[in-house]
This record gives sequence, C-alpha cells and structure tokens, in this order.
Amino acid sequence: MTTNGVTVHNGSGGKKCLRREWRVEVSRRVKSTHNPLRAIIEFMNLKPNPEKSFIPLSVGDPTVFGNFKACPEIQNALCDAAADPKNNGYSQIIGSEAARDAIAQHMNREGHSITSEDVIIVNGCSGAAEMSVITLANPGQNILIPRPGYSVFQTVCQANEIEFRQYDLLPDQKWIADIDHMESLIDDDTMAIVVINPSNPCGSVFSCTHLEAVVALAEKYRIPIIADEIYEHIVFSGKKFTPLASLSKTVPVLQLGALSKRYLAPGWRLGWIIVHDRDGILKDVRMGLQKLCGVVLCANTVIQGALPAILENTPQSFYDDVNRQLQEVATVAFEMLSKIEGLKPVMPEGAMYMMVGIELDEYPEFDDGLAFISALVQEESVFGLPGECFNCPNFIRIVITVPEEKMREACRRIGVFCENHRNKIPTNHQYLH
Amino acid sequence: MTTNGVTVHNGSGGKKCLRREWRVEVSRRVKSTHNPLRAIIEFMNLKPNPEKSFIPLSVGDPTVFGNFKACPEIQNALCDAAADPKNNGYSQIIGSEAARDAIAQHMNREGHSITSEDVIIVNGCSGAAEMSVITLANPGQNILIPRPGYSVFQTVCQANEIEFRQYDLLPDQKWIADIDHMESLIDDDTMAIVVINPSNPCGSVFSCTHLEAVVALAEKYRIPIIADEIYEHIVFSGKKFTPLASLSKTVPVLQLGALSKRYLAPGWRLGWIIVHDRDGILKDVRMGLQKLCGVVLCANTVIQGALPAILENTPQSFYDDVNRQLQEVATVAFEMLSKIEGLKPVMPEGAMYMMVGIELDEYPEFDDGLAFISALVQEESVFGLPGECFNCPNFIRIVITVPEEKMREACRRIGVFCENHRNKIPTNHQYLH
Repeated sequence: MTTNGVTVHNGSGGKKCLRREWRVEVSRRVKSTHNPLRAIIEFMNLKPNPEKSFIPLSVGDPTVFGNFKACPEIQNALCDAAADPKNNGYSQIIGSEAARDAIAQHMNREGHSITSEDVIIVNGCSGAAEMSVITLANPGQNILIPRPGYSVFQTVCQANEIEFRQYDLLPDQKWIADIDHMESLIDDDTMAIVVINPSNPCGSVFSCTHLEAVVALAEKYRIPIIADEIYEHIVFSGKKFTPLASLSKTVPVLQLGALSKRYLAPGWRLGWIIVHDRDGILKDVRMGLQKLCGVVLCANTVIQGALPAILENTPQSFYDDVNRQLQEVATVAFEMLSKIEGLKPVMPEGAMYMMVGIELDEYPEFDDGLAFISALVQEESVFGLPGECFNCPNFIRIVITVPEEKMREACRRIGVFCENHRNKIPTNHQYLH
Repeated sequence: MTTNGVTVHNGSGGKKCLRREWRVEVSRRVKSTHNPLRAIIEFMNLKPNPEKSFIPLSVGDPTVFGNFKACPEIQNALCDAAADPKNNGYSQIIGSEAARDAIAQHMNREGHSITSEDVIIVNGCSGAAEMSVITLANPGQNILIPRPGYSVFQTVCQANEIEFRQYDLLPDQKWIADIDHMESLIDDDTMAIVVINPSNPCGSVFSCTHLEAVVALAEKYRIPIIADEIYEHIVFSGKKFTPLASLSKTVPVLQLGALSKRYLAPGWRLGWIIVHDRDGILKDVRMGLQKLCGVVLCANTVIQGALPAILENTPQSFYDDVNRQLQEVATVAFEMLSKIEGLKPVMPEGAMYMMVGIELDEYPEFDDGLAFISALVQEESVFGLPGECFNCPNFIRIVITVPEEKMREACRRIGVFCENHRNKIPTNHQYLH
C-alpha cells in the first residue's frame, strides 16, 4: 500500500512493510462525500459589503431570525421530558414504543393506516434519507432524484457509489416533475424514485393528480418510492398536501418525516421512516432498516420522550400561524422580485423556500449565476443559495423564514443591484471567475 | 437484475425490463450489517422460568434498575437547555463552538492539550466509532480490534467490507492485550489499531506501561490508533486511567468519548471524536470527519446546549459515588462467583461489566457456553450476555450496574444452577443445540 517503507520480519515471522514516515490517508468513501452547498459556497469565497448589514437568505434554519419560535406547548413538552430521568436510558433501537405509536396515530389522523411497527425513528430526516437509500440500492445501481432537489440524496449516493439520475422539475409549470423524463431514466437497475413534496428548494406542492402519475410510473416498473415529506404540514392556503403513500395500495413507499421543520426545532434531530408495506413486499427492507438502526443504537431519547405531547398538544393555530407568516413573506418577496427586470421568481405553495430565476442574458457582465450572486453579496450583502447547490444553475434559492421587513430590505437591495447591472457591457473581468 | 420481466419500449425510446411482480431486495451493505448481540440472543430463544423473577444481567444501560441516576446538576443542566429556544436550531455540523470548547477544556484539565477545533461532536460513541473506522479504512483494508471487545467496530467493518483482525486480550493477565499477537496481525493494509480502555466487556483498565507498549507498536508501523475511552472516568479505587493520547507526541490518535455512560444518560446520544493530530498528519482525516458530519447535519442541539453546564457543574462526589457503588457490587459478585466451582470471574477494575469464565469441562451436559446460559435462564431466570457476543466463547458478561441485593440474588441462583449441573453426565440432549 505504501511504497516508501522497508520490509522487516516481525516477532511472529510475518513480513511486513515498515512505513518510514507518517501518512494517514482517508478512505475513498470519505473522499466521495461532498456537501455541494458547502463546496460551492467555499468556492465562491463571499465577501459581503462591510457597509451594509448582511442578510443571509441562504440559511435553511427557521429559528435563526427570531421571528419563528416553537410554541409553548412544544417547548413545555421538551422541558417535561428533560426533567424525567426515565428519558435518560436507551430506547429500543427503532425508537420507543410510545414515540412510534404517537407518530402512527398522528399519521393515521391524516389518512394513513399504519401501526407503531411501521415507524422507524432515526437521527433526523437526513438520517432517514441516508438509511433509505443505502438500504434499497447497491453500488452501481441507481435511484431517481429531482432536479432541483435537496442535496442529501445526491451526497449519500456519491459516498456509496450509487448512481443518481436526475429527473427535471419544470419551473414554468410550478415545478411539477417531467414524467416522461423520469420514465426515460428508468432501467433495470433503478431501485427507487425519490419524490420531495413539498419541495426543497422549490416550495412547490404537487397535486393529487400529479402524484398519481408518479405512482403509476412506479407501479409500471415495480419501483418503490422514497417520499420525502418533511414539509408535509407547511402548505399555503388554497393548496392541499396529499401524502403519496395514500394513493396506492400496491406501490411500496418509504415515507420520510421529522419534527424538525414543522415544529421549528431542526437541531433536535428526530426523524422517521414510515414503512408503507404492501403484502410483505418490504419485509426485508423493514428488517434491514432495523439492522442499520442497531449500529448507532437509537435516536435521542429526550426528544422521543417529548414527542407524544408535542404531537398531541400543539394547537392548530400554531401550524396556521407559521403557514400564514411564511405565505405573507413569500408574497411580499414574490411581488417585489417580480417587478425586477431579469429576475423570474416562482411563487411557492409551501415549504420555506422560493426559487428565483436569473435571466443571465440581461446581465452580460456575469458569466454565470455564481458570478451574479457573488457580486450581489459583495455590493448589497444579500445572499441566497446558488441554484448550483441543487443542480439548477441560474437560480437563487431564498428562504422565506426571515421577518417581513428584512425581506423587503433584501428585495430592495436586490432591485438596486439589478438596476445597476442590467444590460451593462462587461468592461473588465472583475465579476468573472 | 430481475429475470421475470418483459422488455418494452418506453416513451423516450429506451428499452427496459418491466418487472412482472414486486420484489424489493435490500442492499449487500444491509445484508452485511449484523449486531452479534441481537443475532446470538435471538438464536438462543430464551425462555425464563416463569416462577422466578427475571434478572437481566445483560443490559448495558445503567439507568434501567433505578439505582444509578444522573445527579441534579446533570438533570438541571438538561432542563435549562430544554427551556432555551436557542437550542432548537442547527449547530455547526461538527457541534457548537460552546460545546466543543467545553469538551476541550474538560479534556485539558485531564492532561490533554487540545482546542475546540480538535473536537467533533457526533451522534453517540457508536457514531464516533463508525465514523472513525470508515474514515480510516477502505473496503479490503483492515483494522485491529480487541477480542473480547465491544461489537460496534466489528459491525461497522462487516457492513463496509473492511477486514477486522482480532488481537487477544488475556484473561489470566487481567485482560491486557497480547502485544506479540497484535503485532503478528499487522500488515501493509492495517489502517488503525482500536484500543478500548477501560474495556467493555472486560472491565479492565490498562496500565500506563501497557499502553506505552501499544503506542510503541503503532509508532513502529506508523498506524494511527482509535482509542475508545468512553469509560475513562469509571475506574475503581487503586487503579488509574491513562489517556492513550497523552503517551505520544508522534502517534496520531482519534479518541472517542461520550456523555452517555459517565453521566448515566446513554439515550442522549452525544459522543465525540477528539482528533489528536501530530504535525498535520491527520489534516485529511479531520476534514473527512467534518464532511461525514455534514451528511446528517449535527448532533442533538439540546444536549449540546446542556453539555457545558454538565461538564462544569457535576460535583466530584457524583463520579466518586458511581465508582464506589459499581466497585461494591463488582466485589460482591466477584466474591460470590469465585466460590462457585467451575466459574472463573475476572475482577474488573473499571467500566460497568465483569467477565465470568465457564469451565465447561465441569459441565459435561452443555456442549457450549450458549447451552449453559440458555439453561441458566430457563431454570433460574438469570441472564448474562454470552461471550460469543464479544467473540469470546465460554464467558458470560454480567453488568455490575444492578442493585447489590439483586446481584446477591442473581449470584445465589447461579450458585444453585451450578451446584445442580456440575459434573452431571448428560442423559439426554435437552440442553444441547
């Protein structure tokens, strides 16, 4: 393995190579593990304008601006759980019966028909995504993921030598999936179709009819679905969320969810996988997920202890308030950004994000979206995540979790920036990579 | 991939195989993921005697019997953290600066010299073990692990096609490592030596001199060490724990620890990896660990929020009381079991376990230790983990976290069982597998 060593005999008579110097390499798996968000942001080397307050419309954590807070029922449930030493010990590796039962009952109120045996509690929704993918696919096989889409599925695939194939979401059709494109990507080695609904980063909410088309495709090719529904409750007025698993009695679905976003506590890291089995098709998958849980033993038991009270006691007004507030800020941003020439925001229907298209033709100074965004940060101290983070260049993802006034200020500054740069002929290369 | 399908043309003109029926297989990785404890216990199909209360000396959770409790300072720190919504959001992916700094300062009081940059907070000590192994070794390479030893390292290796090679610990020498055997296992593909000290399952605490011998071997072959020191503070009077990383300025060490065992809260799932780098040798490893953290985003932030106060406020008397209580129960068990002919307990020096050898020659009714233990459960409702769970047949691991009276009762029953079976000639095969 190393060439700069000397071969010696050791005590037991074997031959081995003494390495002459220390050199500790990392595994291929680690080398293949990339968080595109981090990599792209580091590459951009952002330098905000020191004379303007920095407005990070990039941060997918609803708690950072102080305008969204867990309600007292949620925080009190956690305090009660923290005070009870019974929550200090291990739970079952797939989560405590009480917590799994609470999730099952909660889901059933929304039209499912599951039991605590179908619920596997894991370390956050990202953990749920990782476990689902590595359970269903071997290295060399593939899964379908949306483009644009949240990056964890891509990251997990790359780290595990699983191929990811991206089906397009269509910005001109409110980000619905291109079903023909999806079908064209399927082959014998396609082990799962990932559906993220409501969507991060698009904020779209699929109609029942559209989801039925996805389910029909899965049925045709006998491919299980991973339904990432972490934003299931964050849907704006006039739209309705349909749980994908409710649309079929034959297509097996792993439904992913978590406390984190809906209860405004992403740091709690409590996610789940719901195994929607059909006649035992997922028997091995269920056992496999349980085995994977056994490696790290269980998810945090204090949060598990709080979970039944959180699901039971949180008033409807909390969900309604969060959604109303998000929709208001989204509406403000959409209206302001729509008026800016050369930007093309897509109004979200749920979740916590809005995608804003950049019509680069109108900004000839900038080679690409990254250059546009870098300059926006440098001049106006406003930052949204480049679409490149979601494999969707020339878009910006902005969060709609900021206070309305901050969003207005951000949009004003974006307007100034666009005004200053629209149709400017590049005189030098200061904005180009 | 599947043979029972029909090839069709799809909308995009590609050919693909329509699977005629649903069949969802799990990946090789999941198939290779085994928790030996679970597998062995299921295989044994235990049937306790319904007429005697069940005493599970098998459970590695110190909270289950009610005699060990986190002290008020610990529980209060958690309550304070739970009440503070600032702990609801994400932390940095490697843990909050405050929590990492608290760990660094705490370790430095015990002779290390690290900063918060050297601390990576992860999801429990099992998570720390998994991340360390997959960062250092590729499939086909190998790491050295102790036999007997806690199973997570083996589980992670098997799941990731990393070879594990087991060096012997010597029961007749208080479970010190057989250094010659360790050396004989090393080859060019040996990427790490795992040292578990104090030991699970042995309860041994290595002397400074013994650890120096391990470090010298690592130095000779330039192999980094993974030092699982989760039980570092659980050491009985008269023995002293030496942090392995303190013994060398050249051998790089990943030191694993956690809140769980020492603060009697294993369900909190807060572990850490301390990167003891030497002149940048571990630069890539540190970055690799950070990248792996980025997949599941961060460890639970409520526990992270409580961590500084826990480390700061827990009085010395808490640690002393826990250790005294453990040592007392261990002493009772050791004295009682030592008097039983055909059993050979090894007195622990720390941690929460004792290994008890079964001299099977004296129990000819039983083919192996598993049969002995199954019969013990069936007749006396006392269960300790078979040594097979730690690759050490013909031993039983018992926990010393039970109340003293329960331990006395368990040992009495073991005595009755041994009395009934010693030197009995097998008349039928009721106890044989």
